[in-house]
Amino acid sequence: MAGEKYVYDFSEGSKDLKDLLGGKGANLAEMTRLGLPVPAGFTITTSACRAFLATGENPPSLAAEIDDHLASLERDMGRELGDHGDPLLVSVRSGAAFSMPGMMETVLNVGLNDANVAGLAAQAGGDERFAWDSYRRLVQMFGKTVCDVPGDAFSDALDELKQARGVRNDVDLGADDLAALTATFKRIFAKHTGHDFPQDPREQLRLTIAAVFRSWNAERAVLYRRQERIPGDLGTAVSVVAMVFGNLGPDSGTGVAFTRDPASGAQGIYGDYLQNAQGEDVVAGIRNTVPLERLQEIDRRSYDRLLDIMATLEGHYRDLCDIEFTIERGKLWMLQTRVGKRTAAAAFRIAAQLVQEGMIDRDEALRRVSGAQLGQLMFPRFDLSSAPDVLATGVGASPGAAVGKAVFTAARAASLAGSGEDVILVRRETNPEDLAGMIAARGILTARGGKTSHAAVVARGMGRACVCGADSLDISGSSLRVGDVEIAEGDVLSIDGTTGRVYRGAVPVQPSEVVQYFEGSASEDELVQAVDMLMTHADDRRRLAVRTNADTGDDAARARRFGAEGIGLCRTEHMFLGDRKELVEKLILAHTDQERGDALAALLPLQRSDFVDLFRAMDGLPVTVRLIDPPLHEFLPSLEELAVTVAVARERGEEHADDERLLDAVRRMHEQNPMLGLRGVRLGLVIPGLFAMQVRAIAEAAAHLAAEGLHPRPEIMVPLVGAVQELEMVRGECEQIVAEATGVPILIGTMIEVPRAALTAGQIAEAADFFSFGTNDLTQMAWGFSRDDVEGAFFWRYLELGIFGISPFESLDRDGVGRLVRIATDAGRAEKPGLKLGVCGEHGGDPESVHFFHEVGLDYVSCSPFRVPIARLEAGRAALD
Amino acid sequence: MAGEKYVYDFSEGSKDLKDLLGGKGANLAEMTRLGLPVPAGFTITTSACRAFLATGENPPSLAAEIDDHLASLERDMGRELGDHGDPLLVSVRSGAAFSMPGMMETVLNVGLNDANVAGLAAQAGGDERFAWDSYRRLVQMFGKTVCDVPGDAFSDALDELKQARGVRNDVDLGADDLAALTATFKRIFAKHTGHDFPQDPREQLRLTIAAVFRSWNAERAVLYRRQERIPGDLGTAVSVVAMVFGNLGPDSGTGVAFTRDPASGAQGIYGDYLQNAQGEDVVAGIRNTVPLERLQEIDRRSYDRLLDIMATLEGHYRDLCDIEFTIERGKLWMLQTRVGKRTAAAAFRIAAQLVQEGMIDRDEALRRVSGAQLGQLMFPRFDLSSAPDVLATGVGASPGAAVGKAVFTAARAASLAGSGEDVILVRRETNPEDLAGMIAARGILTARGGKTSHAAVVARGMGRACVCGADSLDISGSSLRVGDVEIAEGDVLSIDGTTGRVYRGAVPVQPSEVVQYFEGSASEDELVQAVDMLMTHADDRRRLAVRTNADTGDDAARARRFGAEGIGLCRTEHMFLGDRKELVEKLILAHTDQERGDALAALLPLQRSDFVDLFRAMDGLPVTVRLIDPPLHEFLPSLEELAVTVAVARERGEEHADDERLLDAVRRMHEQNPMLGLRGVRLGLVIPGLFAMQVRAIAEAAAHLAAEGLHPRPEIMVPLVGAVQELEMVRGECEQIVAEATGVPILIGTMIEVPRAALTAGQIAEAADFFSFGTNDLTQMAWGFSRDDVEGAFFWRYLELGIFGISPFESLDRDGVGRLVRIATDAGRAEKPGLKLGVCGEHGGDPESVHFFHEVGLDYVSCSPFRVPIARLEAGRAALD
Repeated sequence: MAGEKYVYDFSEGSKDLKDLLGGKGANLAEMTRLGLPVPAGFTITTSACRAFLATGENPPSLAAEIDDHLASLERDMGRELGDHGDPLLVSVRSGAAFSMPGMMETVLNVGLNDANVAGLAAQAGGDERFAWDSYRRLVQMFGKTVCDVPGDAFSDALDELKQARGVRNDVDLGADDLAALTATFKRIFAKHTGHDFPQDPREQLRLTIAAVFRSWNAERAVLYRRQERIPGDLGTAVSVVAMVFGNLGPDSGTGVAFTRDPASGAQGIYGDYLQNAQGEDVVAGIRNTVPLERLQEIDRRSYDRLLDIMATLEGHYRDLCDIEFTIERGKLWMLQTRVGKRTAAAAFRIAAQLVQEGMIDRDEALRRVSGAQLGQLMFPRFDLSSAPDVLATGVGASPGAAVGKAVFTAARAASLAGSGEDVILVRRETNPEDLAGMIAARGILTARGGKTSHAAVVARGMGRACVCGADSLDISGSSLRVGDVEIAEGDVLSIDGTTGRVYRGAVPVQPSEVVQYFEGSASEDELVQAVDMLMTHADDRRRLAVRTNADTGDDAARARRFGAEGIGLCRTEHMFLGDRKELVEKLILAHTDQERGDALAALLPLQRSDFVDLFRAMDGLPVTVRLIDPPLHEFLPSLEELAVTVAVARERGEEHADDERLLDAVRRMHEQNPMLGLRGVRLGLVIPGLFAMQVRAIAEAAAHLAAEGLHPRPEIMVPLVGAVQELEMVRGECEQIVAEATGVPILIGTMIEVPRAALTAGQIAEAADFFSFGTNDLTQMAWGFSRDDVEGAFFWRYLELGIFGISPFESLDRDGVGRLVRIATDAGRAEKPGLKLGVCGEHGGDPESVHFFHEVGLDYVSCSPFRVPIARLEAGRAALD
Repeated sequence: MAGEKYVYDFSEGSKDLKDLLGGKGANLAEMTRLGLPVPAGFTITTSACRAFLATGENPPSLAAEIDDHLASLERDMGRELGDHGDPLLVSVRSGAAFSMPGMMETVLNVGLNDANVAGLAAQAGGDERFAWDSYRRLVQMFGKTVCDVPGDAFSDALDELKQARGVRNDVDLGADDLAALTATFKRIFAKHTGHDFPQDPREQLRLTIAAVFRSWNAERAVLYRRQERIPGDLGTAVSVVAMVFGNLGPDSGTGVAFTRDPASGAQGIYGDYLQNAQGEDVVAGIRNTVPLERLQEIDRRSYDRLLDIMATLEGHYRDLCDIEFTIERGKLWMLQTRVGKRTAAAAFRIAAQLVQEGMIDRDEALRRVSGAQLGQLMFPRFDLSSAPDVLATGVGASPGAAVGKAVFTAARAASLAGSGEDVILVRRETNPEDLAGMIAARGILTARGGKTSHAAVVARGMGRACVCGADSLDISGSSLRVGDVEIAEGDVLSIDGTTGRVYRGAVPVQPSEVVQYFEGSASEDELVQAVDMLMTHADDRRRLAVRTNADTGDDAARARRFGAEGIGLCRTEHMFLGDRKELVEKLILAHTDQERGDALAALLPLQRSDFVDLFRAMDGLPVTVRLIDPPLHEFLPSLEELAVTVAVARERGEEHADDERLLDAVRRMHEQNPMLGLRGVRLGLVIPGLFAMQVRAIAEAAAHLAAEGLHPRPEIMVPLVGAVQELEMVRGECEQIVAEATGVPILIGTMIEVPRAALTAGQIAEAADFFSFGTNDLTQMAWGFSRDDVEGAFFWRYLELGIFGISPFESLDRDGVGRLVRIATDAGRAEKPGLKLGVCGEHGGDPESVHFFHEVGLDYVSCSPFRVPIARLEAGRAALD
């Protein structure tokens, strides 16, 4: 763009220009504007990066702009880049609007060369060791990150030198050693790149900036963006900052600090300081840091100044800030600030504190906590007061605290769990063959793989605790070893899927105090008070009602304590399990109307009594009952097992008439794709009396409670409707039975879970009092994914490839499935403005998805009892969007 | 509506007012306007019917309007309704815009009562028998159709009387008998209705009109409309017509006539005449009719007048007309005319004749024939002159006449056919394992399943004759039995896939001359000339290109002769069957990259040679190759069978290591819902090298032919894409391989068969050169129907309940699946205006669906070779819409 400004001095930017200057550049500018001591510098915009990536060249005007800003930087610092006697050095830092792993981060000491390394030593009061160390770091960092020289080539040379000198630590190498090492590094550089290390400081700078630009498209960065759905065309900014040194003597140093405790949220001074050191050294862990309070003894003036600055920043950002600083010969410099990450508990505490301090209002506080954080606070935790042995640490891949006997094969997991044991399945890594064992286990532990490995993805999908990538574990077929500890099958392990820690033995599990609060046991704890304040505010704000998915009176009562405002989904097929399976088998195998009628008649009073319990627990609130949904053969034995039983019995010449009859039935009812087969409303239209029995049970239960003076509010929901004709027929039958059985008004509506139902929602609305989106099935059919099959078989691969950022079963796919929800919502409301709209798929409890449902204009979400508070919180947050 | 006109005299209407006056009323009005001799009368509009059905009452102004028109009718006829001495009688006829079974049709003789029956006799020259017969018919017809008196009650009384009188026929009953019968009928009427037969002629008329109105909502009519997707709120019109009598002596009579032969289309006089009779008697078949020509001997004046009128009508309607007439004492009256139904051959011949006669233009001729009719003309037929034995009758599921030796397994079918025999594959039902046998057979016969069973669908897809659901067949492993007839392997059967009949022995087959014409053997036959003219005109008119679905060079060559302009779908998995199954098994069971690579390397030259044949046959035309789509376990044995084999072998203590290994693999790959599992693009992204092998084979085949100087135009199609990311990845891989292997340009596109692909088509278009709608899978997923499961399980019931008029797998569901096609078309073209769009589901050859695809704006349809001419014809017709 002609005349576009590509370079901003720190004094020209502000924190609101993140998109243009990146997070780092925008915050450096903001601190500069606040008058805080920031080294001079400037930021090259993301727009310049976009132009570079589009054309492979810098925009024509960029070089001159950089020259101008560099000249001004030189003036400010009183030093010149490339000067031999008193050289200016700069650091070059990337910084996109979102922080993004995989991109090039920083190159320090740009500007050093053979000619001015002595000048740097002079600047540092004659410290030659410091100067050569700075130079060899530049060659190493520049080689690795700008020119793709393998890092090992440098570190191997360093190790060789230390060995030759007989020293253990870098700091034990002297100036001469480091000068020699620099020469070695330059040879390595030339060998790998085919040209010498560039001596021209401006060329160093130019190449570094281009490398930062290019790193926007580094493989890991691209993958990360794909996963996080960050647009690929934003580009990164580049900040060029005058170097300051914390390693120029005891009156220098470097540190990090938080304005509040990021773990607990408690107010105070939290941070670490390392005297006579640079940031790199803190990371390398060569020497121990000291608590930040100690700085007041070391350098009282800088300490006081730092505290002032931290108060300024917190007041300005109105939030916990995370800062990096350096002290160069007693002068404090701010190198970075950002709103700090924090634990879930701290997020709630800090939000509440800031409200109390009058820094933010309740809306803002609500924006700063999330349902995901609340979820973390609701998981039970290990009671670590006994200081259990940490056996290993991996990636916390699926939260939860699980205790059980270690098993090393899926088959053993299934058999031990089958006999009532809690087991932890331990595998080097899992694959689709391990699925049965993963389902059987309380938790899953692997030595390999990260958050998107097969184990992690499947465990999250199933709600199992999972630690993966605990790479210190040496796992064989029947045991694991860590160092000299061996864990054999049957030995007890405890795994924490939040922290990634693995403990030996059984660690006691502590119930979450937040869950206790929801359950109604009061507490004076600060966290609980914060949660209470924020939940109350969310409830005030939200437009979406929150219901629960529950099939029993107990679940319903619990969910009601958690704040559920009704039941959005009662799955009646769950009432067909246990002892009743026998009756269901009779129903399925019935050969005559009489047999079928008898089986239904026997089920009627049982179903009625289930509904009496449920309606009682939810008295006065709506209860949506879904008529039977799954294919009937789900209530029969497996075809494979039965076929084998019969064949083997036959081979033995044994009697097997009953099994043969059953096998015939199972074979007859076997379906290639039961998900898309005879189920839901199709069953209701094909099997006479089935839906009628359920509707009668609902209506009679309502009549019974109404006679007691209660206020039952049942709603009948027809599953798997794809055409209005199906609903019309069932509705006609329902209305007649309801009119016969009770005076209680009962709404009749439908699931929208088949894509065609969404596409023809205008027609379907004519026959429906409400729609409830079944987003699980809608996702299965819109994507063509059978959840039973694909999650284990290839979702891990899709996550790895970045085709999904997150499974569409976890968080609603807005573009595809979400579009169906929108189409149906719009058409349904256009046909019938008062149509009640809700969602009862698992997405009803997913934070991201709750925002979508709010945005689309649904009336309620329904989710599992445990997720009700999360949905309430997110519904409140969504109302603030 | 205030002031709305509800009644039209015949002189006020016209044939263009069908919606208001119904078909019958509009045509009576048209004939009246043409000055033809139509008895006086008037029509009550469909609008009056709608008002009646909405409120349960006639619109307030209707009674007065009817009175006015009745008065005018009385003036015209010189008789009054209810007059004792010279009564006016009327017929009351229903008539909707669409002809519709299940509605009340006609009540004759309205106006007769106890007081004027003698007057009618006097009118008829003292014929008392005629008068009493007319009266008893009124009581009977009015009782049955207006008052729901069971018809048997009347016919039983009539039978009793005949028995008592010792006569066989109604005509042998005298005037006294009929007077007595009338009295009996009135008693029956009173007993069933609780009131006497109404004596007031105006009440008779009022009640009859109301009954016609109500019959719009008769169960059969509602079901029919639901099935035919005729809106339920149109209503029917009612025509009131002065009675004329053909049974008043030898100078009276009644007849039907066609202006051309409705069977052959030949010009001339076709019809039947019955002297001294009424229309009812013709239907009852009591006496034999005579050919219409005989009328010139009986009543030359009326005959000549009739011929004049027929010429007038044909000239006016510009089409074959079907008429009903009555001669009352030498005076000709026209009672009805309509455009006549005709056979498929006649439709083509008549259309061509009318063009030659200058009566219509070619566009109009094309409108008057249909793809369904053309399809009928393409099937070979049995020559039934030898009156062969009908062994059984089933559902005619895929038309055609097939003769061959009965075989009872797919393997025998393949081997016998391989040695040159014609075979009929007989199975209880078929499944995908029978595919090779189905391909090898001339025809397929099953005992189970309907028009949408696996056998039916696959046979239709392959153009094989198929009779299914012949449930009298008792099929065992190696023979079939019907009653005491047994058919063993090798016995010859003949099956007619149009009529569903199965014959024992070889019935001679007549080849279709229309197919011979398409195959290129010329003929001077009038039918072939007509087809040629209409096909040529359709090709001139159509915008849609027509491609074919073909997997072999032979199929491709045949389709090309039938007019295919390329291949829209080559299913590469069909190339993985037969001998190659072993290689595929190796691929699936491969444990190492090496094993997998070896299996793929062995498949490469085979696939390449398949493509060489295919591209050669379609030289110069586009060939769309779909990369492998079905789940790999389809190439492995069935889980149930294998589990039984292994269990039994184990029980016997036999060796079974190979089977066990195979069973492990089958179990590992088993999916709950394979349709929604690991298949299509998912396989390509999970199994390294699989797609690459296929793409290499395509590119190398193209290079090979290009080197010969030919012009291969391959297009690569990626199946089951749901997200643009999937397509991008495969596209990247394809482009690289294509660039390495050939200079021939190859388009890369995707199936749109997953609903999400349609919903996100704008994104997907960015990475696609073309879309091809896979409407089979799109239908499965949009409705949530697994075709393998639901068609047999409940489609029959859905068709019966009227939820479908036709299976959505046969004809595209416009509202649901069609909406997805529209969404994707619009979004795809918006993103990429030049995007090529086609369809390759079976709907591509369905006439209704072709019109939809034209309307939506696709570029081409693709269908089985046999359907190519049908699609061409319908694409031409669609362009005229």
